[in-house]
Amino acid sequence: MPEFSHFSPDGAVRMVDVGGKPSTRRLARAEGRVLMQPGTLRLIRDRSVVMGDVLETARLAGIMGAKQTSSLIPLCHSLLLESVSVRFSFPEEGLILVEAEVSAEGRTGVEMEALTAVSTACLTIYDMAKSADRGMEISGIRLLEKSGGRSGHYLRGSEKA
Amino acid sequence: MPEFSHFSPDGAVRMVDVGGKPSTRRLARAEGRVLMQPGTLRLIRDRSVVMGDVLETARLAGIMGAKQTSSLIPLCHSLLLESVSVRFSFPEEGLILVEAEVSAEGRTGVEMEALTAVSTACLTIYDMAKSADRGMEISGIRLLEKSGGRSGHYLRGSEKA
Amino acid sequence: MPEFSHFSPDGAVRMVDVGGKPSTRRLARAEGRVLMQPGTLRLIRDRSVVMGDVLETARLAGIMGAKQTSSLIPLCHSLLLESVSVRFSFPEEGLILVEAEVSAEGRTGVEMEALTAVSTACLTIYDMAKSADRGMEISGIRLLEKSGGRSGHYLRGSEKA
Amino acid sequence: MPEFSHFSPDGAVRMVDVGGKPSTRRLARAEGRVLMQPGTLRLIRDRSVVMGDVLETARLAGIMGAKQTSSLIPLCHSLLLESVSVRFSFPEEGLILVEAEVSAEGRTGVEMEALTAVSTACLTIYDMAKSADRGMEISGIRLLEKSGGRSGHYLRGSEKA
Amino acid sequence: MPEFSHFSPDGAVRMVDVGGKPSTRRLARAEGRVLMQPGTLRLIRDRSVVMGDVLETARLAGIMGAKQTSSLIPLCHSLLLESVSVRFSFPEEGLILVEAEVSAEGRTGVEMEALTAVSTACLTIYDMAKSADRGMEISGIRLLEKSGGRSGHYLRGSEKA
Amino acid sequence: MPEFSHFSPDGAVRMVDVGGKPSTRRLARAEGRVLMQPGTLRLIRDRSVVMGDVLETARLAGIMGAKQTSSLIPLCHSLLLESVSVRFSFPEEGLILVEAEVSAEGRTGVEMEALTAVSTACLTIYDMAKSADRGMEISGIRLLEKSGGRSGHYLRGSEKA
Repeated sequence: MPEFSHFSPDGAVRMVDVGGKPSTRRLARAEGRVLMQPGTLRLIRDRSVVMGDVLETARLAGIMGAKQTSSLIPLCHSLLLESVSVRFSFPEEGLILVEAEVSAEGRTGVEMEALTAVSTACLTIYDMAKSADRGMEISGIRLLEKSGGRSGHYLRGSEKA
Repeated sequence: MPEFSHFSPDGAVRMVDVGGKPSTRRLARAEGRVLMQPGTLRLIRDRSVVMGDVLETARLAGIMGAKQTSSLIPLCHSLLLESVSVRFSFPEEGLILVEAEVSAEGRTGVEMEALTAVSTACLTIYDMAKSADRGMEISGIRLLEKSGGRSGHYLRGSEKA
Repeated sequence: MPEFSHFSPDGAVRMVDVGGKPSTRRLARAEGRVLMQPGTLRLIRDRSVVMGDVLETARLAGIMGAKQTSSLIPLCHSLLLESVSVRFSFPEEGLILVEAEVSAEGRTGVEMEALTAVSTACLTIYDMAKSADRGMEISGIRLLEKSGGRSGHYLRGSEKA
Repeated sequence: MPEFSHFSPDGAVRMVDVGGKPSTRRLARAEGRVLMQPGTLRLIRDRSVVMGDVLETARLAGIMGAKQTSSLIPLCHSLLLESVSVRFSFPEEGLILVEAEVSAEGRTGVEMEALTAVSTACLTIYDMAKSADRGMEISGIRLLEKSGGRSGHYLRGSEKA
Repeated sequence: MPEFSHFSPDGAVRMVDVGGKPSTRRLARAEGRVLMQPGTLRLIRDRSVVMGDVLETARLAGIMGAKQTSSLIPLCHSLLLESVSVRFSFPEEGLILVEAEVSAEGRTGVEMEALTAVSTACLTIYDMAKSADRGMEISGIRLLEKSGGRSGHYLRGSEKA
Repeated sequence: MPEFSHFSPDGAVRMVDVGGKPSTRRLARAEGRVLMQPGTLRLIRDRSVVMGDVLETARLAGIMGAKQTSSLIPLCHSLLLESVSVRFSFPEEGLILVEAEVSAEGRTGVEMEALTAVSTACLTIYDMAKSADRGMEISGIRLLEKSGGRSGHYLRGSEKA
């Protein structure tokens, strides 16, 4: 049966001891979506050709957010991130797909850092465009891939249900 | 036509000047969802009766996250929050609904604080339960209500499309 | 019967709503003690005449710590502090008495800021002197005085037990 | 004669160079006390059976505080903590005993992290219960044990006075 | 004779009490320069037409840095900034001129916020371009204008020397 | 031709991947200047013999600022600093020369940490003395030396122009 690792045997929350785990290269990819009116997306994409840019602001916010993960998520270990990148694509009308990739060498995985990068980038898109479209929705934040830990390689969609 | 306020007339991003706006009481409510396997939700709800608690950890992370909003979202103004609360409910199998409510007196709205509270609480639920269920998804993060600003009262669903 | 204010009627922790409270001038004073071997205190006091200084470092740490109170104490409101000062005295052999005074205009008191200033200053004294005396003890951290709130003027020792 | 390590030969404070020290597994345990009226402790313990919880909030604050140690204590080195846990016990009427344990692999000890965890947890108990009992006192914050460094194993009470 | 305000009468540093000062609208402008090889500046300006951008990154870093001023500068008061903007110009070969403007309503001036915005933007330009030109120099960081405080309007160059 | 490393092949900013670089001992030295009226410098130097001290405050701010580098500079990697020191000298009338030295073992250099230490110390001198001399100027912030990375040893002045 699955277990939660952030609890001690007596049931108290703790930052779980990773001292016995080997330090290995960790990688995680995560994605999220911002749904908006088609006209809002056009405004955002049009701005990309001028000086100030919604998506570049969101990209930097995502990268900087990843570095703050352990101070936002209470039981998350600190890690020295070795790379963070955030990408945007537009697979449908009125939809921005945000994807983040993070790597580090350490004793814990970096999925929370990838998810925090995605989440912060999505919130920043909302902030930048909210004066035009208050009804935007952030959706589909999830882990795509994770490697380097004891639990093996995780690739969304390939797991046995 | 809608406009983005975080840009100066020459197109550069800026923290927009709110000095001319009156200081009024602001309120915002936002929500988000964490989708998981029904067994994971049962594990989380079962823990709530013992000492350590996934949802209480997520609630505190959401409240503390709201206070960090202006350092996470690049162009967001700092505000002195007057109240923050985070609630959980379970409207369906395998679904935690997170709702946050924030208020402050100030020259800008608190919707980013409410959305950041929701988002941080959802990420913390993921972190606490990920050893049991790596496939969880965070979804439906959106503003429910906002009042106190020049743009009037916003209530999701009541706006003209 | 006394009540805890950081809980909502349904029992969940929250940042309590202070929106209905008037904004008044708040003041708090708190103290703490660091107990050490008499020789350690002599070393600290001797250093005060040269360039680097244990107590000046602790004083600055206390002042800066006061400004971080709301990010350290989960349900504490943010406030714009108007003054912070930290004083040291040596009432006995092997004892440093730390006293902090904080003021602000706001809707909540500043006792947590004064206590955090004291606590951070005491920890910094420990850090600076620990290579000489690992057995130091921090003690007697308590509120001395508080004024400006609805609960009236509090002066330690003058309350009816 | 004992010496303070946070000073350069010319007397200026500095973050002491630990580059020549080996990276080893470090552990530290520290404790602190919160003294209160017996009725206040009963209120706190009674709350533990409901949803919101003074001690769980303090525990999380202690764990998160440990991660902020190097930004609070001016000359403290940053470390990647591998585990943090905070425990509470009630050895006497009107007394909460807080104990924290921290470990990391690194070139400096983790005693400041353990002491900061204890100190932040104690302050949070004060904050949560202060509306019921303003006269609480934080006391007896001290190092219990430390291992892994060049100075050998320290266990309070076993040192030669 | 001029006096330093960050000291108490007994000579200790403190966060000076601004409680007696009126809350007024404050404004400050500051500037700084980054000197580099002409080829480096051409590379930076060329990048401005593509997706990633040295100057946009520096602008956001400056805006976000302004919000962190009171946690960086030990005795600086916290303020709720109402606007922050950062501009770049290129008055000479191999020179980027950075100018920041900050406003707030409060009891202290915002010159440290404007200077911190400039300084952080300059450091970020250095960071972004250092792989091409390690010899860059940051220079001429100074206050241009300040208004809203008791000391009256300050405009650099207009004061009597 | 020189290249900027903080961009991905498609032109987006990113935190560049240092995972393939060896972890080596890094060192950097940087300097900066604060220019002021001769009388202001005399005031600052006179204060150094009493309890509160402009330069000791600036030194601590520089050391603490170095530890915040990766949260201030958007694409900067986090590092565990092994030593930070800040020195002051007075080579001319009305001039404080600030020099910082930083070391760490890691996959990226520490020049941004040394430059941030210098920059924060200079800003703090400005803050502490600004009530006496608003016209001070921060100048000459630059890297003096850097060693430990793949790009070899850098010593300002020794490079071929």
